[in-house]
Amino acid sequence: MKKILLLGASGSIGRQTIDILQSRREDFSLLGFSVGNQDNLIVSLITSFPEVQSIFLLNKRRIPELSKQFPHINFFSGEDGIKRLIESLQVDLMINALVGFIGLEPTILALQQGIDVATANKEALVVGGKLINEIIASGKVHLYPIDSEHVAISKALKGNEQTAQRLILTASGGPFLHLSRTEMTKVTVQEALHHPSWKMGKKITIDSATLMNKGFEIIEAHYLFNFPVDKIDVLFHPESKIHSLVYFADGSYLADIGPSDMRIPIGYALYGGQRKVGLPHNDLTLDSFPTFHFEPLDDEKFPLVSIAKEAIRIGGSLPCVLNAANEVAVYAFLEEQIPFLGIEEVIKWALDNAKVIGEPSLEELIAVDKMTRTLVTNYIKGKY
Amino acid sequence: MKKILLLGASGSIGRQTIDILQSRREDFSLLGFSVGNQDNLIVSLITSFPEVQSIFLLNKRRIPELSKQFPHINFFSGEDGIKRLIESLQVDLMINALVGFIGLEPTILALQQGIDVATANKEALVVGGKLINEIIASGKVHLYPIDSEHVAISKALKGNEQTAQRLILTASGGPFLHLSRTEMTKVTVQEALHHPSWKMGKKITIDSATLMNKGFEIIEAHYLFNFPVDKIDVLFHPESKIHSLVYFADGSYLADIGPSDMRIPIGYALYGGQRKVGLPHNDLTLDSFPTFHFEPLDDEKFPLVSIAKEAIRIGGSLPCVLNAANEVAVYAFLEEQIPFLGIEEVIKWALDNAKVIGEPSLEELIAVDKMTRTLVTNYIKGKY
Repeated sequence: MKKILLLGASGSIGRQTIDILQSRREDFSLLGFSVGNQDNLIVSLITSFPEVQSIFLLNKRRIPELSKQFPHINFFSGEDGIKRLIESLQVDLMINALVGFIGLEPTILALQQGIDVATANKEALVVGGKLINEIIASGKVHLYPIDSEHVAISKALKGNEQTAQRLILTASGGPFLHLSRTEMTKVTVQEALHHPSWKMGKKITIDSATLMNKGFEIIEAHYLFNFPVDKIDVLFHPESKIHSLVYFADGSYLADIGPSDMRIPIGYALYGGQRKVGLPHNDLTLDSFPTFHFEPLDDEKFPLVSIAKEAIRIGGSLPCVLNAANEVAVYAFLEEQIPFLGIEEVIKWALDNAKVIGEPSLEELIAVDKMTRTLVTNYIKGKY
Repeated sequence: MKKILLLGASGSIGRQTIDILQSRREDFSLLGFSVGNQDNLIVSLITSFPEVQSIFLLNKRRIPELSKQFPHINFFSGEDGIKRLIESLQVDLMINALVGFIGLEPTILALQQGIDVATANKEALVVGGKLINEIIASGKVHLYPIDSEHVAISKALKGNEQTAQRLILTASGGPFLHLSRTEMTKVTVQEALHHPSWKMGKKITIDSATLMNKGFEIIEAHYLFNFPVDKIDVLFHPESKIHSLVYFADGSYLADIGPSDMRIPIGYALYGGQRKVGLPHNDLTLDSFPTFHFEPLDDEKFPLVSIAKEAIRIGGSLPCVLNAANEVAVYAFLEEQIPFLGIEEVIKWALDNAKVIGEPSLEELIAVDKMTRTLVTNYIKGKY
């Protein structure tokens, strides 16, 4: 019985994780979770998982009422609430399905406490990959990716690490794959939120449209698999059935193929990197294999991929600046404060104006994140 | 330094094997080989591989002349010539690139002598898979497939055997994938020899057009990977870039992808199931990934696949009858004695009229093969 803490229970990954936990009550107990917006989820989760001991709520208004109804449960909220949630529990695995920089501290905290982490939070690795890998190097804890791309690479690399030469992350290309740069200047929020193959949260859907998401995944792959970014490529594959590939010394590739169903990679991570029979998932049957299209990445059309690679080459605090600028810019775009290509422009501005700290500590990263957000917010106010 | 015996040096697989051996003189020595038709190859091979000790020639006329020129080399020919070739050498690996039933005895003989075998000869496993697996069960010798499909499955299965549920052999579909049965009645030998994606010998090219080849590969996969034939599927993929797939318990597939270049699977087999850097091969670059098409197998249009499965379900000497009838029918088609769909008709007739021996010995298989050839030849003479 694996004891689980789930951060981000109300998001897309969180709900699909719960789907699997519910189907495998014999393998997992859910000791705690955090919820952001949809706190109506709380009561149904407590009912489904009566073993729950601790809950974090973003919205603290409901805590008095819930504490009365469930006196045996600890409720947390506020700035250090997630930290206290983690410290209140003895779990085997924390699933980090938070979105954004706020995912960094919990990942580091959990790993430091000897808790394995399965992460759908990209930003933690983008910003703090070096710090995270230093903890993992101890050999006492594991970090499992949940992204379909990184699970695909894990599967293809397994047992074949010695002869792997390149990692190839597939990318649907998002809704604007075939637009010109000129056409991209005019796209609306609604158009950008219309992802062709995956149903995801808003932040990651915009990151997919700008290809920032793929840049982040390159950085994640770099840290997860110890591959230099120059050996990590992107291949457009609009059908999202090949989830990624590894290229080997003999000129062949291994590719992970499957339906566009995040429950498969989530299940793989929940079981510590093992395929399990009987978990809920959609089927890609031989009758339903669609035609697979491919296109090489066009760096001029989607410059954020090479910008992400460059940020890692320079390293230090620069990936933190990249992430903070992107977060601010994406939410500014979602609120129609800046145009679609403004996201890219804002990120470039932030990177051009950043001072790089060589080996930042967690505290320094938090400070860089905060400062970048202020600078970028002011820049947007001034320019747009 | 691995000591090699190559059977079928002048065929398509044989020549590509030599290509690799020549590029890796530091890893392999070629102690012997057999040649069929193109015996002008002999002198150039002896020059390239001065370590050669024994040679089999189909055509014995040249032996006196060659013996004079190369007195240190043993030359063999005639009915037991291949047997004597094998017995004359101490090698680590025999590459069986013979075509047809004649590949069976050498494979069994080599394995019995403790020599590992890499086989491109399908017919040995189709006819004698059970006998071969009994020798391999000793754990002292290995059989490595050379077929791109089976190498693909080996790569995808490696380390993942526990959760593999189905094997999926891809098939280009050959030149007649989109013809109707009526159109197939009229196809010519030249049309049948025009394979869309692979350049191969004549026998296997016709087997690809009838899909008998895929039926044989199902039988091979059944013996190589200990999978029941009901868990082995066929998927049409005309571009021949996905070389086969394995379907796993979690709803995902692993696929081996690469250029249509047999030197890659040959290299994998030569190194005992390992990917090697720097062997000669074509490249499938990210820029050159074509669009991948897929179609499910149409059993009514290509009945030989299910006929092959049925032959294995019944077992015993029936797969031997299937193979012998096919060999005779294919050569009769190549000589324009029967029409294209006559191949299928002749095979069905042979299977319908066969008496099944339950657990045939090698000698019994040789007798069944001989008798089937006579019966089928007479049947063709009488009917066509």
